[in-house]
Amino acid sequence: MKGYVFHGPGQSSWDDVPDPVVKEPTDVVVRVDCVTICGTDLHILKGDVPEVLPGTVLGHEAVGTVVEAGPDVRTVRPGDRVLVSCITACGRCPYCRRAMYGQCRGGGGWILGHLIDGTQAEYVRVPFADLSVHPLPETLADQDAVLLADIFPTAYEVGVLNGRVRPGDTVAVVGAGPIGLAAIATAGLFSPERVIAVDPAAARREAARRLGADAVADPAETPEELAADLTDGLGADVVIEAVGVPDAFELCTRMVRPGGFVANVGVHGAPATLHLEDLWIKNVTITTGLVDTHSTPALLRMAAAGRLPTSALVTHTFPLEGMEEAYDVFGRAAQTGALKVALGAQPPKDLAVPTA
Amino acid sequence: MKGYVFHGPGQSSWDDVPDPVVKEPTDVVVRVDCVTICGTDLHILKGDVPEVLPGTVLGHEAVGTVVEAGPDVRTVRPGDRVLVSCITACGRCPYCRRAMYGQCRGGGGWILGHLIDGTQAEYVRVPFADLSVHPLPETLADQDAVLLADIFPTAYEVGVLNGRVRPGDTVAVVGAGPIGLAAIATAGLFSPERVIAVDPAAARREAARRLGADAVADPAETPEELAADLTDGLGADVVIEAVGVPDAFELCTRMVRPGGFVANVGVHGAPATLHLEDLWIKNVTITTGLVDTHSTPALLRMAAAGRLPTSALVTHTFPLEGMEEAYDVFGRAAQTGALKVALGAQPPKDLAVPTA
Repeated sequence: MKGYVFHGPGQSSWDDVPDPVVKEPTDVVVRVDCVTICGTDLHILKGDVPEVLPGTVLGHEAVGTVVEAGPDVRTVRPGDRVLVSCITACGRCPYCRRAMYGQCRGGGGWILGHLIDGTQAEYVRVPFADLSVHPLPETLADQDAVLLADIFPTAYEVGVLNGRVRPGDTVAVVGAGPIGLAAIATAGLFSPERVIAVDPAAARREAARRLGADAVADPAETPEELAADLTDGLGADVVIEAVGVPDAFELCTRMVRPGGFVANVGVHGAPATLHLEDLWIKNVTITTGLVDTHSTPALLRMAAAGRLPTSALVTHTFPLEGMEEAYDVFGRAAQTGALKVALGAQPPKDLAVPTA
Repeated sequence: MKGYVFHGPGQSSWDDVPDPVVKEPTDVVVRVDCVTICGTDLHILKGDVPEVLPGTVLGHEAVGTVVEAGPDVRTVRPGDRVLVSCITACGRCPYCRRAMYGQCRGGGGWILGHLIDGTQAEYVRVPFADLSVHPLPETLADQDAVLLADIFPTAYEVGVLNGRVRPGDTVAVVGAGPIGLAAIATAGLFSPERVIAVDPAAARREAARRLGADAVADPAETPEELAADLTDGLGADVVIEAVGVPDAFELCTRMVRPGGFVANVGVHGAPATLHLEDLWIKNVTITTGLVDTHSTPALLRMAAAGRLPTSALVTHTFPLEGMEEAYDVFGRAAQTGALKVALGAQPPKDLAVPTA
């Protein structure tokens, strides 16, 4: 089969690779029908994630069809259309027992396209299938569903839920890339008073407005003052970091009100400065996290009901074999305006009409 | 009257100062019967808290007797024995309405011995008396009660409650000074599996054992390895920072398990490094805070019932006019072994025997 292979920093290509097979009785093999590219894949290509070994097929998000299932798989069978989640879960370790699947100690966690071959291929082996793939409602189109493999649960769990967004809150989202936009959209589910989006790119600020931001700012325009002005001098109740650089994190800690929450979602490669000399007295709560995907079933129901603006994030589509071009377009997002790309997606079906 | 006056960094003395009087209808004036010294007072003397103006009477903890009450005071009257809390609270601002009295925007918060004259004197004016002094059970001795003005609610709220200690947890407390010891004692209320105390001073590690620590370590002995060894390689569920220096905070972030809590209690004067390149994926929650004292009534009931080891922390007693000597002994704790000092305390009374 074909797969997108990491050959070391700066080197990757759409290559012939061996077909995956069921190795463990809890595995499935899924034919990849639709796949996307994550900002984390770009980090891997830059060499920021050294545990990814040369020769690894990248990708941790997909929609596909089960073609083979090990004898111990109970929840799906060949022919089922499924979401391949970015997180696999053994289901038995102390972390899985707390629904903290991202921290799985039993061989799961974020392994696809990281520690084992991933989804940017014609087929993918998924371990621990019962807790790692989700049967898909027929009415949910490929390019909507694939966004629920990673970015929507990540933005929702690590940003909105960790940040404890509540009705009436002022929520600031620093970074209006795909994760930031999904955070804006899912923060809206909690009826905040307002959402402030911060991004240096005018096109992303505009996208943020379309997804529900009430105010936008360039980070060069002292968004901490905007947040204070809108909140009687206090600052935002919740600030979500969706960039992954020290400056963005430190801006978040200046935008938050006393007693507020800073939820870090960004993938960081360097330490930040934590100004405890200011923050020790401010009763702030700072959270970090890899997604657990415990919310994926609920998000799938909401997307199927048309209550998540997933399609709004897909700006470019490609056939599966257009992987190299898709990486190029996604990697030059500042020029191309790419938010999320979808490869191999089938056009949305009309809603099924019940027969009499 | 006499009061202990800050005259600028490194300068302070037990001076003649004007008697305080009721200025606002919600004020009381309290005769100070027992007072203590806080590590924060030492920070002020060093010049680390620049908003404290020369001429300010220090101190934010006391037990005393109301001698005058403004016409709008409802909950106490002259003659009542009260605890003067380190936090005063207007009761009306948005923060007071959420019981976040430490962040009071209506003129309260930490003001005693900070923005107005404090408790290290023969008398003290306490604003917003209804929410800022607590009537004391007769059976609670002065030197037990005075520890509930600051250190017990601080350790409990900002350390144990913010850290969400739960039964079965491994709790690490970094710093076994008075706050750390109170954190060890109040963490014990939640039946943790074990408490690990970290302090460079052998005497403080020994005190930590007396207050309930199951394991102790010198910070030079890589306590992160001890925490990992005791927890199947994971780390502590909750780590409480009770020092206030960057190294201690950074140690906390190395001792915590994925999904765990770091509760900062220490008063910091410098930024720390937050290793987001390691922590972004670990699902940690970091909290900071000034005490709110919402727990003070409950702690008073527990202390009166003999369920808090308050007296174990008082190592030295002095008459009120021994303030300068008390500061000397407290300020040289490494030599004197001082934990908390109590000035002016009356010996504990026998429990009252009910009359037939």
